[in-house]
Amino acid sequence: PRKFQKKIEKIAKNTKQIGKDDPRKIWHAFKVGLALTLVSLFYYTEPLFHNFDQPVMWAVLTVVVTFEFTAGATISKSINRGIGTALAGAFGLGAKYLAELIGREGPNPIILGVLVFIVGALGTFTRFYPHIKRRYDYGTMIFVLTFSLVAVSGYRSENIFQLAHRRISTILIGVFTVMIISMIIRPVWAGEDLHKLASTNLEKLASYLEGFGSEYFHISENKSVEGNNNNEKGFHEVFLSILGSKATEESLANLAWWEPPHGGFKFNHPWKQYLKIGSLVRKCACHLLALSNHINSKSQAPNEFERRTEEACKKMIMESKKALKELALSIKTMAQPISSIRNTKNVIDDLKLTLGTSKTLFQYDESRVLDFVPTASVVSLLIS
Amino acid sequence: PRKFQKKIEKIAKNTKQIGKDDPRKIWHAFKVGLALTLVSLFYYTEPLFHNFDQPVMWAVLTVVVTFEFTAGATISKSINRGIGTALAGAFGLGAKYLAELIGREGPNPIILGVLVFIVGALGTFTRFYPHIKRRYDYGTMIFVLTFSLVAVSGYRSENIFQLAHRRISTILIGVFTVMIISMIIRPVWAGEDLHKLASTNLEKLASYLEGFGSEYFHISENKSVEGNNNNEKGFHEVFLSILGSKATEESLANLAWWEPPHGGFKFNHPWKQYLKIGSLVRKCACHLLALSNHINSKSQAPNEFERRTEEACKKMIMESKKALKELALSIKTMAQPISSIRNTKNVIDDLKLTLGTSKTLFQYDESRVLDFVPTASVVSLLIS
Repeated sequence: PRKFQKKIEKIAKNTKQIGKDDPRKIWHAFKVGLALTLVSLFYYTEPLFHNFDQPVMWAVLTVVVTFEFTAGATISKSINRGIGTALAGAFGLGAKYLAELIGREGPNPIILGVLVFIVGALGTFTRFYPHIKRRYDYGTMIFVLTFSLVAVSGYRSENIFQLAHRRISTILIGVFTVMIISMIIRPVWAGEDLHKLASTNLEKLASYLEGFGSEYFHISENKSVEGNNNNEKGFHEVFLSILGSKATEESLANLAWWEPPHGGFKFNHPWKQYLKIGSLVRKCACHLLALSNHINSKSQAPNEFERRTEEACKKMIMESKKALKELALSIKTMAQPISSIRNTKNVIDDLKLTLGTSKTLFQYDESRVLDFVPTASVVSLLIS
Repeated sequence: PRKFQKKIEKIAKNTKQIGKDDPRKIWHAFKVGLALTLVSLFYYTEPLFHNFDQPVMWAVLTVVVTFEFTAGATISKSINRGIGTALAGAFGLGAKYLAELIGREGPNPIILGVLVFIVGALGTFTRFYPHIKRRYDYGTMIFVLTFSLVAVSGYRSENIFQLAHRRISTILIGVFTVMIISMIIRPVWAGEDLHKLASTNLEKLASYLEGFGSEYFHISENKSVEGNNNNEKGFHEVFLSILGSKATEESLANLAWWEPPHGGFKFNHPWKQYLKIGSLVRKCACHLLALSNHINSKSQAPNEFERRTEEACKKMIMESKKALKELALSIKTMAQPISSIRNTKNVIDDLKLTLGTSKTLFQYDESRVLDFVPTASVVSLLIS
């Protein structure tokens, strides 16, 4: 009993943590329960539908299967399900008709088997095409499923039309319930998450750069090696998380494509640009990592050269940081960034002048900023 | 018609490409088609099942929904589906019984509605727990689905037992068909993919290191800047792909957990160790990236120091490369690696001696190898 109590306490703690980290998850659970109850009760109170091949099943199934966390995923699945079912129903009826033409009494099972095999194999293979996989994976699966069901079901073609009509209307009711609830009650937009992710990542880079600048130029005299290492480890984590965000970004951009206009996002919001920003951010992180290694090697670097370029570098880091922050802000607020980026360009020119032909240490700085200028242009693109 | 023809040609080309890249995908499509046909025909030829609440539907649905590309994913989904359905069926019957006790004539719809809401919301929330999400996500979804279906279905408890019996046996037939076909006909093991991924990534690092060594010490005199840059860009790609492999690795390790012993993998093969190796490989890649930046800064480095340490470094790179290759090989063949790693340790000591206290440039080498020694120990762990 003691152990059991402890386990329960642990679960309660976990639950609290999840709710605290992202209260939208609790709302999501509530929304799914609501949709399920609505659909169930609707059918439960309609005696018309009772015992008629249980169409209620289709509504419940639709709700449970298509209700995803983000609105984009829900809409994508719903639309895929609706269209997949309708198309497959038509094809399935065609297949059945064909089999009945050939068979003497009732449909010919061999023809049906061959057709089911062909559709099953082709449909499954189609799901490997990148374009289909990205957007219509679920729809293809539903197509295979419904086609097989219709082709194999024991009904004759006569009463199957009525059946199909009822089934499709049931699925539509499920789909609309889900879509409306997911968009009206505290919607979780994939687009918004993507948007936030892009600006957060830029901010992370900026704050790292800030820490790096102060460490490299000011505190470096009495640098504590341990603190350094800790910092670097911390950055390693941040860095790996930024680099690992590619998969998340891609799926979010994918789902955002399905979402209707909301918030500040117009119809046809250029989601693909976020992916470009993301990949530039990742490259930038790579350069920063290389830069971070210079903290360790600093004491051995040639002092003469360092002194000559220190001023320009400080300015550069400051400006880069400012520019990154401004970019993050401008992505957040979707306003045009101007001031810092032009400044940064000036500073790059300054630095180039100072460096002349000798650019040992600071080519990293430079390549970083060169990396970072395209980011700026992408953002401008995004906003205009 | 011209356009249409071109489009068809393009699709044909794509198909060929997919088949060439991974012929297992074609086999997968074939397997799904086969399973679907078998299940359909089995039910089609059993007149017993005809028109009886269409249990065939459940078998077809099971096949389409649970048949995934890798054997691990298929087994995971199948088991989740089987257990989820059985448990939810029992709970659903309980809920119905409760509602019938309270309602005067037939089950009380309000009680049912409340119960469906609670199970729907709790079940959905449970899916956010990391442990559940990783392994039992699908099972939880099926639980919610089946519970709602049973609770809401129009049948009375009397004939529902027979129904449940039939439905569960149908699902079991679907599940077993899928599991057997996916494991017997050209199985695609997630574990094997994971295994290959780990050794390929190590090999990539080794071959990069090889290129780096020769470039840094031999060809560096007449180094062509362009070739350099190309190389670096190429490495950037490789590097990003290695860093991005985290998500793939995690899901593969997850799926491999479900797979029965196969090939050289025993029961309870330590899949988690692969994740550790993966994260070490990623860290190693970070260090190599830092190292790669030294190619550019080479000409400005202090020559005196360089000459003194060149020999040791060359040896070091050679040994590291060998050790990485041997690690890759030993992971591939699952044999104990010995020779090179001990060598590497010796070389590290050598280098430390040579370097004495001055370790500017080559701390990277060192930290890389220090990084890499734990990899070795992990591998030893893995094999023993």
